[in-house]
Amino acid sequence: MEIPPVVIDRLPLYARALDMLDREGRQVVSSQELGARLGVTPAQIRKDLSYFGRFGKQGRGYTVRRLLDELRQILGLDRQWRMVLVGVGRLGRAILGYEGFAPQGFRIVDAFDASPKTVGQQMGNLVVKDVEDLESALSQDRVDIGIVAVPAETAQQVIDSLVKCGVRSILNYAPIAAQVPRGVHIKRIDPVLALQSMTYHLKRDVPAAK
Amino acid sequence: MEIPPVVIDRLPLYARALDMLDREGRQVVSSQELGARLGVTPAQIRKDLSYFGRFGKQGRGYTVRRLLDELRQILGLDRQWRMVLVGVGRLGRAILGYEGFAPQGFRIVDAFDASPKTVGQQMGNLVVKDVEDLESALSQDRVDIGIVAVPAETAQQVIDSLVKCGVRSILNYAPIAAQVPRGVHIKRIDPVLALQSMTYHLKRDVPAAK
Repeated sequence: MEIPPVVIDRLPLYARALDMLDREGRQVVSSQELGARLGVTPAQIRKDLSYFGRFGKQGRGYTVRRLLDELRQILGLDRQWRMVLVGVGRLGRAILGYEGFAPQGFRIVDAFDASPKTVGQQMGNLVVKDVEDLESALSQDRVDIGIVAVPAETAQQVIDSLVKCGVRSILNYAPIAAQVPRGVHIKRIDPVLALQSMTYHLKRDVPAAK
Repeated sequence: MEIPPVVIDRLPLYARALDMLDREGRQVVSSQELGARLGVTPAQIRKDLSYFGRFGKQGRGYTVRRLLDELRQILGLDRQWRMVLVGVGRLGRAILGYEGFAPQGFRIVDAFDASPKTVGQQMGNLVVKDVEDLESALSQDRVDIGIVAVPAETAQQVIDSLVKCGVRSILNYAPIAAQVPRGVHIKRIDPVLALQSMTYHLKRDVPAAK
């Protein structure tokens, strides 16, 4: 059965909230409380989880640890994932320095750039490689995820190379709506979308721009 | 009536897809086609839009331009929004250089940092100010949105200052689950969540880590 993408997108949120509850020593949680923490209705949570079997008992809530373990397995959070970064400009450097990936099992194993000034530079424990060598490097080692942090003009080309070499998950920071074939998953990190859903709340109080 | 946050979060996606259709010269679109472009069911789109009144006619689809204009007004996308950036390290510099904000009406009007090396530096058309002066600067000019790009350790403190000075929308890049009072909206830019929903698809083919 095909699970709707919006359901898959919510599962990591559930896993994160359950992880926090687990750290707080909680053993059981109701869909009401979980929903209140996440801004999702209890009915939505129950429906989302029903795609994956039966969790929790009517009126007794979910066993935190068990549901967390199941979600981790469903999402593949119990594995190590190998990523390559393409684009080591300001944004790429910020991504290389981001400390949130490793604890969650995501490791950048190679970084590529087009600029002769950047190629060969040491960044943490990586040496930046020439983007010309991207395809040959990808053919040698398993890479699960490609992170694209190049300018908009070259992003589609880089994404095409990643796809050609068998990378099936792409995290795209470039401001383009990239095209990928069926079977390849791409997520765009898009601060503007986040801002636009907040201005809904702001606009009630702020006078329209002149 | 309180609109569910998940509905608000989908509206910018609808607006973006409609904007693309408008640029392609399309005048009418069905909820089926809009849904297919976005990975959302047609029923969901109809239900989301029903919170805001009647759009489109049974069997005739939506008038692209009209629905787009309505969504822009609902979301406040027809305004100019003033933002301050706190934290001008690698990530903050990447944010200052991001070209996606201005065309959508989001303008960074001030940038703050704690490091004496960074304070006083010219970045584009801004001079970085001392974060010590954040509260006095915020009391002088209207600021709609605060962008937080400081390390995790100081993020909550910066967020508290922003809230204290009346900023009601915060875009948080720091890897913390920040606390804000009711009535303040915060969004976290979180690449790990995006990765975690993609590994769901990957994990079917990749052997578990040893």
